[in-house]
Amino acid sequence: MTSDLDGMAARDREAIEARLTTLVDALAGDHDGMREAIRYSLLGGGKRVRPLLCLWTHDMLGGWRRDAALDAACAIECVHTYSLVHDDLPCMDDDDFRRGQPSSHRRFGEAVAVLAGDALLNLAYEILATMRERHAVDADVCLDATAALARAAGTAGLISGQAMDLSPPSPRDAGVVDAIHLRKTARLIAASMEAGAILAGADAAARDRVRAAGVEAGRAFQITDDILDIEGAQETLGKTPGKDVHDGKLTLPSVIGVDASRARARSHVDAALAGLPAAKGTPLERLVLHVVERIR
Amino acid sequence: MTSDLDGMAARDREAIEARLTTLVDALAGDHDGMREAIRYSLLGGGKRVRPLLCLWTHDMLGGWRRDAALDAACAIECVHTYSLVHDDLPCMDDDDFRRGQPSSHRRFGEAVAVLAGDALLNLAYEILATMRERHAVDADVCLDATAALARAAGTAGLISGQAMDLSPPSPRDAGVVDAIHLRKTARLIAASMEAGAILAGADAAARDRVRAAGVEAGRAFQITDDILDIEGAQETLGKTPGKDVHDGKLTLPSVIGVDASRARARSHVDAALAGLPAAKGTPLERLVLHVVERIR
Repeated sequence: MTSDLDGMAARDREAIEARLTTLVDALAGDHDGMREAIRYSLLGGGKRVRPLLCLWTHDMLGGWRRDAALDAACAIECVHTYSLVHDDLPCMDDDDFRRGQPSSHRRFGEAVAVLAGDALLNLAYEILATMRERHAVDADVCLDATAALARAAGTAGLISGQAMDLSPPSPRDAGVVDAIHLRKTARLIAASMEAGAILAGADAAARDRVRAAGVEAGRAFQITDDILDIEGAQETLGKTPGKDVHDGKLTLPSVIGVDASRARARSHVDAALAGLPAAKGTPLERLVLHVVERIR
Repeated sequence: MTSDLDGMAARDREAIEARLTTLVDALAGDHDGMREAIRYSLLGGGKRVRPLLCLWTHDMLGGWRRDAALDAACAIECVHTYSLVHDDLPCMDDDDFRRGQPSSHRRFGEAVAVLAGDALLNLAYEILATMRERHAVDADVCLDATAALARAAGTAGLISGQAMDLSPPSPRDAGVVDAIHLRKTARLIAASMEAGAILAGADAAARDRVRAAGVEAGRAFQITDDILDIEGAQETLGKTPGKDVHDGKLTLPSVIGVDASRARARSHVDAALAGLPAAKGTPLERLVLHVVERIR
C-alpha cells in the first residue's frame, strides 16, 4: 500500500485490535484455557482485510455508526478466524503453521482447536446480537447485518466452499474453481462490505450493489492469493506466511495458467470498482486496487 | 409420559420435524453432501426436549407467536445437534454411535462431520436472523432470542462445558460437577425456555424467572441422564441409545452416589417448578416433572 493508505490502515487496524481485545475479554466466558486459545488465533496478527473493507465501505457511504461498524467488523474477523482454525485441522488441510506460528491444534491439541473454532463462530453472533447494548443502533440494522453474515458463513458460503475445496467435483475446470472461490472467499468479502453498508443505513439497492462489487473483489482476492502462492511471494496483504502451498490443489492458475489468471484478477477488480462509483478516491478504492497491485 | 402428554408431545414433535425439514431445505445451500450430513444428524430421531421446552414455555405465558417460537425452537435444536456432532469426534468423546446409528464422522468422515457441525451452528443463527422474513415478529424480539442462545452456546456455556468435561479441573468434586452441568446442559435448557418467554413477549423480570427455573430443570436433566447411564436404562426421554458410558467419566453419581444424586435431581425439579407458578397444570410442568420420573 502507498504510505498514506498505510497510515490509515495502521490506525484502523489498531482500532480493530483494541475492539477485538475488548470484546473477547467481555464475552469469552470464564474458562481460561478457551480464552487463551481464542486470543491466540484471533489476536495473532491477521491483516484485517475484511474488517477494513467493512469499515471503509461504511465510511464511503457516509455512515455515522462507526462504533457499531467496528463491532460488525470484529464479528466478521471472528468468522474468518474460526474458518482458518477449522480448515487447518488434520482432517481438513492439515496445516501445522498459520501466520508463522503453530496452528491452533498444534499449539493446544485438536479438541481445543475444534472448540476454539466453535467459540469464535459463536462469538461472532454474540457480538452482533449484543451490539445494540453497546451502541445506539436499531435492532433491524443489527439483524440485517447478522443475516448477511450468516448467509456468507453458512452452507451457501464458507461451509460448502471448504467442502468443495476438499473434494472438488469433476471436471476440475475453471467453472468449478469459480464456484469454490465464490463460496470460500467472495461471499464473506461481500458480506464484510455489505455489513458496512447496512451499518451506514444503505437502502436495499445500494446494499445489492455493494454486495455484487464485494463478490468481484473477493474473486480477485482469491485468484491473487493463488498466484502469490505459486510465486512464493509471502509478505503481502492478507497472506498467511507459513502456510504450505498444497501440491495438486485446485487453483485458477493450475487450470488456466498464471498470465490468464492475472488478467482475470484485474478484470474482477475493474468490475468491483465499476460497480462502486462512490468509492472513487476513497480508501476503499485503494484497498480494492491493492488486491491486484500485490501481483504487479 | 402419561398418555395425554404423550399425545401433545407427539403433535408438537411432528410440527418440529416438519419445520426443521422446511428450514434445512430453504437455508442449507446447494451442496448435496453437506445437506445430507446436516439432515442425517438433525433429522435422525432426537426427542426434541429443548424445542418442546421452548414451545411450551411460550404457550404457558400466553404467547401468540407460535410460528416464530417454532423457528426459535428449531434453531435451539440445531445448536444442540451441532454440539453432539462435534462432541462425538475422535478428538473429543470419540463416540462411534449416536441414537443407535453411526455418528456423523463414522458415516461421512471427520472433515464432513466438523463442517456439518459448523453448518448446524451457523444454521441456528441464520434461522433466528431471518425469522422476521417468515413471521410477523419484531426485530427486537429476534435479537433478544439470538443473544440468549449465543450466551448459552458460547464460551460461557456449551463450549466451556465441553472443555471442562474433557479436562475437569481439580478437585474432582461435586462443585466441579455442578460447574460442568451448568455450562454443558443447564444454560442451553434455560435458553430454550427463555427463548419461548421472549417470543411470548415476557418482560425482563419474567424472563429472569424462566431462565432461573430453566437452569434448575437443566441440572435435574443432566443428573438424571447420568443416573440412567449408570442404571443402563436407555429407552427414555432425551436419552441417546448407543452412546457409550465412559468409564471414569466425572458425574454426580460417581462423586456423591446414586441415592444422593437422585435426591439432588428431585430438589432441582422442585426448585424449577417453585419458580414457575404459572406452569401449574400445563404441559411444561408435566415435561419438567417427567425429567425425574424417568428415574423413579
